[in-house]
Amino acid sequence: MAIKYAKRMEKMGASEIRELLKLTARPEIISFAGGLPAPELFPVEAMKEVSKKVLEEGGQKALQYSTTEGFLPLREKIVERMKKFDINAQPDDILMLSGSQQGLDFAGRIFLNPGDVVVCESPSYLGAINAFKAYECNFVEVDTDDHGMVMEDLERKLAETPEAKMIYVIPDFQNPTGKTWSVQRRKELVEIANKYDLPIVEDNPYGELRFEGEIPPSVKAFDTEDRVIFLGTFSKTFAPGMRLGWVYAPHEILERFIFVKQAADLQTSTISQMEINKFMEMYDFDAHVEKIKEVYGKRRDLMINTMKENFPEEITFTYPEGGLFTWVQLPEALNAKEMMVKALEKQVAYVPGGSFFPNGGRENAFRLNYSNMPDEKIVEGIKRLAEVIKEELGK
Amino acid sequence: MAIKYAKRMEKMGASEIRELLKLTARPEIISFAGGLPAPELFPVEAMKEVSKKVLEEGGQKALQYSTTEGFLPLREKIVERMKKFDINAQPDDILMLSGSQQGLDFAGRIFLNPGDVVVCESPSYLGAINAFKAYECNFVEVDTDDHGMVMEDLERKLAETPEAKMIYVIPDFQNPTGKTWSVQRRKELVEIANKYDLPIVEDNPYGELRFEGEIPPSVKAFDTEDRVIFLGTFSKTFAPGMRLGWVYAPHEILERFIFVKQAADLQTSTISQMEINKFMEMYDFDAHVEKIKEVYGKRRDLMINTMKENFPEEITFTYPEGGLFTWVQLPEALNAKEMMVKALEKQVAYVPGGSFFPNGGRENAFRLNYSNMPDEKIVEGIKRLAEVIKEELGK
Repeated sequence: MAIKYAKRMEKMGASEIRELLKLTARPEIISFAGGLPAPELFPVEAMKEVSKKVLEEGGQKALQYSTTEGFLPLREKIVERMKKFDINAQPDDILMLSGSQQGLDFAGRIFLNPGDVVVCESPSYLGAINAFKAYECNFVEVDTDDHGMVMEDLERKLAETPEAKMIYVIPDFQNPTGKTWSVQRRKELVEIANKYDLPIVEDNPYGELRFEGEIPPSVKAFDTEDRVIFLGTFSKTFAPGMRLGWVYAPHEILERFIFVKQAADLQTSTISQMEINKFMEMYDFDAHVEKIKEVYGKRRDLMINTMKENFPEEITFTYPEGGLFTWVQLPEALNAKEMMVKALEKQVAYVPGGSFFPNGGRENAFRLNYSNMPDEKIVEGIKRLAEVIKEELGK
Repeated sequence: MAIKYAKRMEKMGASEIRELLKLTARPEIISFAGGLPAPELFPVEAMKEVSKKVLEEGGQKALQYSTTEGFLPLREKIVERMKKFDINAQPDDILMLSGSQQGLDFAGRIFLNPGDVVVCESPSYLGAINAFKAYECNFVEVDTDDHGMVMEDLERKLAETPEAKMIYVIPDFQNPTGKTWSVQRRKELVEIANKYDLPIVEDNPYGELRFEGEIPPSVKAFDTEDRVIFLGTFSKTFAPGMRLGWVYAPHEILERFIFVKQAADLQTSTISQMEINKFMEMYDFDAHVEKIKEVYGKRRDLMINTMKENFPEEITFTYPEGGLFTWVQLPEALNAKEMMVKALEKQVAYVPGGSFFPNGGRENAFRLNYSNMPDEKIVEGIKRLAEVIKEELGK
């Protein structure tokens, strides 16, 4: 058969990076590559209780089809939790998703025609880039500094990009850089989006995992014209294997998300929604999140300190106030993708930075994850990486 | 904000029928409208054991991210179960999905450009029509008789439709008609698809629920040129609330499904996959399916017999050998959508047939579901429906 695929499939192929990352799954590798939570913090014992309770109290309901919108008691609890981000939602403004990745796919489907432009941070989340690519869009990358997107660069690029259709940002502990936007920039982003009349997709998978300081108001909190779509998830605060996220959007936009959800997979798992809801009723979710923050905060410190002690001084890296990642900047002459071969020989892995730039061409950086590896492996892995870098620099 | 949606959203709106169906959810209504399994047959007690066991044996793994392809032991068991349909697959040829509805969405994404034509049975599954519509396709409906698609009509329409891109069929206990294709037609379908070089999507959610006779070989069983994509699900044999289905496709096509799955929602729930796998290890899945068949078979008999006794003789209906639905044909002069208002007054509901014809214009039929209502409600509901029809006919 000479298979004729849709045109959009030309943009979706086996990526080099995906093949490379498969190698990092070998157990002998100290991998800082994935974005995996620490499995030892999953509430396994509590889940046993929760699951039993859900099946005892309403097993038939838990196993049956349910509404596309999602389990109402859970959406009510999400409304409460989103107050942390200065968001005042109603349960009806929320649609449950199979992870927040699905919200990225749906945003692409709702807004993007072929040739439309997604304006994003440079660098940005690889999974979002892949999700949007399925809709045959192009990307304009906006410069970032330690306070978020550089607003002058955003304005300049919007002025010269009439095809701009959507702005995508990760303001809290950004993936891949670990950086957090200042409050001022959040406000300005909404003002500029108002001026250019564009929707904003605010992706917030890590916001609750803040190790120090106060949670700033979300971009959504400054939304004056119903243009911000907020994506949340239980993957980092509870468990990614359950695939539970949500979208909070202005009514008219949320209606589109609901139609798209219904056509795409009817609804999110009934039983998973009821289980997380029950967990929140039976246990202290905030205390659970505190435990995660404590462990990740220590691992961040350990990774940063070990890099400070062992990396040559021309190597810089970000100091994330929360989340899962730090971003390492190499001198111009080094190529993180090529260096990965040598890192793998020393059985340590990261994600080369190039993949996070949708338009490519920036190979002298890489992303490190500190949530998934125990202390001694963090120290050992960073020491090995330091050796690799020194060899590359001819030191 | 003057929201600019993607062009594809013009085809996705609140359907009249969806609004109507919301009314059928009221508890006082005897509803034959949904496609819901009987909740009293869900293995709730077994699920308690299964869930406990999965968390005890590998709780951290069950709650963590896992591969896009899906849990290997479960895919191995699916390979075994598909032998019922004369399918000899390898676990690597299978991708786990969040319900088989997701397979329809992905097939559309992989094959359909705007303006492409999906060739389907007339009538066909509403959810598939909605999933494909998101890719801005058109539909050509092929006549069906009691043996499946009429092959002469298929050939004629393919000859005059160069835009044809994909053939979509539900050969076993079709939704909405309950009809099953003959073996001869399955073979011929593949021959014609070979001639026109088109992929076939074979949707098989009900095939295992056969009340009498032998399971015929699937269309996939006759696939000589790697063009048949087979969709399966646990929604009807286990529980729809868990959202677990799969696609079995030729290697090159499956690879596309995997890319699309990764961009769309990363992976299907790890814990749900491990739970169904554990259920199949701890319990007799075939015996569980036998129980479902026994109950549904009796309900089918009861519904058919009550229609025979109470419906005016000019009303015809199909005799499904399995599955969940029967299809009632009204005289030309009657309109099932208009009649629904009167049915709801008598607190009984069905799905008007018009929605199952993607090109519209066929309103004198409706679909009845017999799996979800207990015996006494089936009898009472059909009697009420008979009254409604008689009133419409002026009898």
